[in-house]
Amino acid sequence: MRFTRAPWLGGVLGAEGRPFSTADLLAPVAPSKIVCVGRNYAAHAKELGNAVPESPLLFLKPPSALLDPGGVIVLPSDSARVEHEAELGVVVGARCRRVSEGEAIAHVFGYTCVGDITARDLQRKDVQFTRAKGFDTFCPVGPWIETELDPSALHVSCTVSGALRQDGNTRDMIFPVASLLAFVSRVMTLEPGDLLVTGTPEGVGPLVDGDLLTIEVAGVGALSVSVRASP
Amino acid sequence: MRFTRAPWLGGVLGAEGRPFSTADLLAPVAPSKIVCVGRNYAAHAKELGNAVPESPLLFLKPPSALLDPGGVIVLPSDSARVEHEAELGVVVGARCRRVSEGEAIAHVFGYTCVGDITARDLQRKDVQFTRAKGFDTFCPVGPWIETELDPSALHVSCTVSGALRQDGNTRDMIFPVASLLAFVSRVMTLEPGDLLVTGTPEGVGPLVDGDLLTIEVAGVGALSVSVRASP
Repeated sequence: MRFTRAPWLGGVLGAEGRPFSTADLLAPVAPSKIVCVGRNYAAHAKELGNAVPESPLLFLKPPSALLDPGGVIVLPSDSARVEHEAELGVVVGARCRRVSEGEAIAHVFGYTCVGDITARDLQRKDVQFTRAKGFDTFCPVGPWIETELDPSALHVSCTVSGALRQDGNTRDMIFPVASLLAFVSRVMTLEPGDLLVTGTPEGVGPLVDGDLLTIEVAGVGALSVSVRASP
Repeated sequence: MRFTRAPWLGGVLGAEGRPFSTADLLAPVAPSKIVCVGRNYAAHAKELGNAVPESPLLFLKPPSALLDPGGVIVLPSDSARVEHEAELGVVVGARCRRVSEGEAIAHVFGYTCVGDITARDLQRKDVQFTRAKGFDTFCPVGPWIETELDPSALHVSCTVSGALRQDGNTRDMIFPVASLLAFVSRVMTLEPGDLLVTGTPEGVGPLVDGDLLTIEVAGVGALSVSVRASP
């Protein structure tokens, strides 16, 4: 079963069907860029000793970091402390350039679960987030895109090997989705298929070899990936 | 005149010819990511009051920032100080994942001129470089890719409205091209067509409405773009 083209470009499902239970899901995005937001929940900013920013703090993850549902986060040997950050992902549906907050949500294709996996030690050392958040496998996305959803009060949670680690709600975002889209699109044009990753609630913590990470966004579903040490 | 596919994917020039003098050149890249290096020349790190980093300082520019030769850098109203940074660009020719320094140059397709245009005030304010360096039009690239070139001692210069502003040489890079490719590819897989931007020599300074910016890399050629205030 394939889309005729990317659904955010108007593609529709082809005729050839396949039982969902036998499908291997892939990360349901092919973004020209992955725009992320730091410190967008006050309790998380505080747990890492950071102030709440006056405007959205932007950074980018490279598309090479994307990981499919069921995939394996590889802990790089260059880091001694890799952490989970569970986040709501927003898939852009129409080109955004200087959209207003009022117009923003009409430019969204849908919502998904994203892990902003972070080598915390390298983040502190480098100051710039790019290396710490840019390793291959550090951006699990999925399991699918939910197109009918109000993003303003969604439960976002993270479980590591059965233990609940993060348990937040998008209503606590400092800058909500519409505000983020307006801010980002003042800087860079967002293209259909681009992924906006909206920040993590409190409760970030370490991942170790053998862990199973599950990120859940209410109304979307649950994204699970496993964790392995670098071979 | 078109390539059958991207030249870094093995494409060749089609038969249909066209005089070079009548062509409108486009940015000769279509990268899945633009990986940049900060503070890679000691004299430039010093002029901005920064220490020389122990390892390459990585950041990303979004592909939406690309600008064609002859294009227009638009100065955003959100910044009061936009500056030029002239740099050697490296176009990746073969997938790189954990390449050694010795293997690295064999993975290069060629070299080009890049402007790492930067809103200096926003860079200082945000700390993260993403917004300051990510505006649309902030990554002029071209005028073409030179495939036969040794990157180890190339003159890199920048002229603004006829005045020489930057006048450096890649031999003064703290981390040379092979070292950068090895370092970056320990983090993220580089794909054919990806662009590595290798840092700027000293002499960065402001751009104002009406300026003509020319970036030249010896052995490649000269890239010229103009500068306009936001409408």
